[in-house]
Amino acid sequence: MKDKRQITATQVRLKAYPQGVVGADTWSITNDLPAEPAAGQLLVRMSCISVDPGMRGWITPKRSYMPPVQPGEVMRAFGVGEVVASQSEKFAPGDMVTGFTGVQTLGLLDARTVRKIDLRFASARDYLSGLGMTGYTAYFGLLDVGKPQPGQTVVVSAAAGAVGSVVCQIARINDCRVIGIAGGAEKTAWLKDALGVDAAIDYKAGALDAALDAACPDGIDLYFDNVGGDILEAVLMRINRHARIVVCGGISQYADVEQAKGPANYLQLVTQSATMQGFTMRDYMHRVPEALMALATWRAEGKLQFREHVVQGIDSFPEAFDMLFSGANHGKLLIDLEERN
Amino acid sequence: MKDKRQITATQVRLKAYPQGVVGADTWSITNDLPAEPAAGQLLVRMSCISVDPGMRGWITPKRSYMPPVQPGEVMRAFGVGEVVASQSEKFAPGDMVTGFTGVQTLGLLDARTVRKIDLRFASARDYLSGLGMTGYTAYFGLLDVGKPQPGQTVVVSAAAGAVGSVVCQIARINDCRVIGIAGGAEKTAWLKDALGVDAAIDYKAGALDAALDAACPDGIDLYFDNVGGDILEAVLMRINRHARIVVCGGISQYADVEQAKGPANYLQLVTQSATMQGFTMRDYMHRVPEALMALATWRAEGKLQFREHVVQGIDSFPEAFDMLFSGANHGKLLIDLEERN
Repeated sequence: MKDKRQITATQVRLKAYPQGVVGADTWSITNDLPAEPAAGQLLVRMSCISVDPGMRGWITPKRSYMPPVQPGEVMRAFGVGEVVASQSEKFAPGDMVTGFTGVQTLGLLDARTVRKIDLRFASARDYLSGLGMTGYTAYFGLLDVGKPQPGQTVVVSAAAGAVGSVVCQIARINDCRVIGIAGGAEKTAWLKDALGVDAAIDYKAGALDAALDAACPDGIDLYFDNVGGDILEAVLMRINRHARIVVCGGISQYADVEQAKGPANYLQLVTQSATMQGFTMRDYMHRVPEALMALATWRAEGKLQFREHVVQGIDSFPEAFDMLFSGANHGKLLIDLEERN
Repeated sequence: MKDKRQITATQVRLKAYPQGVVGADTWSITNDLPAEPAAGQLLVRMSCISVDPGMRGWITPKRSYMPPVQPGEVMRAFGVGEVVASQSEKFAPGDMVTGFTGVQTLGLLDARTVRKIDLRFASARDYLSGLGMTGYTAYFGLLDVGKPQPGQTVVVSAAAGAVGSVVCQIARINDCRVIGIAGGAEKTAWLKDALGVDAAIDYKAGALDAALDAACPDGIDLYFDNVGGDILEAVLMRINRHARIVVCGGISQYADVEQAKGPANYLQLVTQSATMQGFTMRDYMHRVPEALMALATWRAEGKLQFREHVVQGIDSFPEAFDMLFSGANHGKLLIDLEERN
């Protein structure tokens, strides 16, 4: 246990719900020292915070799969931290935990909302990326919703992103032909060279239709959709009979859920007897151990790699949040707090 | 066997693919006498022809679930007729058959494309409506794709139409709460009085949202979509978790499959972990006997009624075809040929 508790505590709070673009008026930084933990509480010093597209939904006061963060509250986030003081018999100082830690350096957490992790098996970062919600989302979305069969053609958008890159790898592990779509030559090169996808398409290079035709000569059996829009329409034009479109929970955070651009050719679902299915991790929380076991095994076997984009310090949160939506991050976006705590 | 063979034969042929609206330039009427049947052929005198939304797709030269009719060919249609002469050992003169008869009064059919029907069990009209493709579409779309559970709220659009009205009745047989949406007071009154739906909504009366709120206080579990557009969006706003949207094959004939109005709130599929699935009867042809048995049983038990809108004479086909898309027909649209043959 490091002796930093007395020094400082910093929180990023939701100042007000954004009107359109998230900006300087959205966040406030405070330095409130937490009280002593009450019964059932833990005082936790965070070492790593996850920055996720889902956060956009949490600061939108609309019907969704979780209640929105209230103005003034510490911004909700997944994180990893070390227990500094415990009023729960299930945790002791020195335990490493993960769960909803919030965007803060030090804070009181309800012991029921976190679980212990073992850093002998994987790094704190892994528990927030490929072995965390990101990995579980890829696992259940692809395998349980998408139901890929060996030899089928699987297309993944935002394929170099946190969820997409794990989807590509699990699809390959399941002997599918994998086509990753990403923005920019660096990302597509990484998809091919590091992940070994069968084809990578740079949608920013234009000619998406021709590129899909070339990469999918036998049509598309499964599409893992992280982006919607034009790419969804281009894929729909090429689906095979009984194709499955998996609409990933993350997408609903990029777009306005009530006024997105609906795919103009969604009736391809009829002519191809195809299915478009949405999901969020809410449906699969009871099966997390299954996913964790599979992902950890593949990771140990060298079949899975997690690309992490790490920024330093709690103050970088607003900037990191913006990166998610500009596509500037390469891989799972994490804030490291070890250096500056 | 009636001795009318020598008199006349009339065909409605596709003159040219319509550019937008189907009109006088789309059809041509001919009076070609068929040749004698060759091996494997039947000469059949039609007694009843079915007019279906699917026909719009058959005269659109685009990728779909069946190849389009070629200009100059007799228009494709389901029908019922009596074998006049047979060069197939499976059929004899006097047999009543159903299948793809085409829009014609007398014609040569491939014996492999028709099957015998028994008029002791049901009328020729029934075999083209509720005990034919219309009924099978309702049966498999609702039960197999939609998977309704007792007590769930099921919404059906075009509920007074051929498929929709059977869907409403099968949903009630399965102990669902059924809300039918149709255009006009006559149709909604029929839904309530004749079919006994739990609520009927006249979408032409406006205030669709308020009407859905009132009729579906517990949200919507299953939507059988025959129309798309604004009604689909209004329903999506009210779906429950794990809701199923069944997109009926018929709809793809009303709208341009590649440029329909995609639902702007389709991401409700994500927040509600819901499924939108398209289907056509192509997927279920091998299970037709199951549907026929169930439908015939319910029919015999007085639990199913088929509303048929019958027009007279082959010449009425172009006008009847237009009715499908103006909503002027009330129930399954059929052309009776007995009177004027």
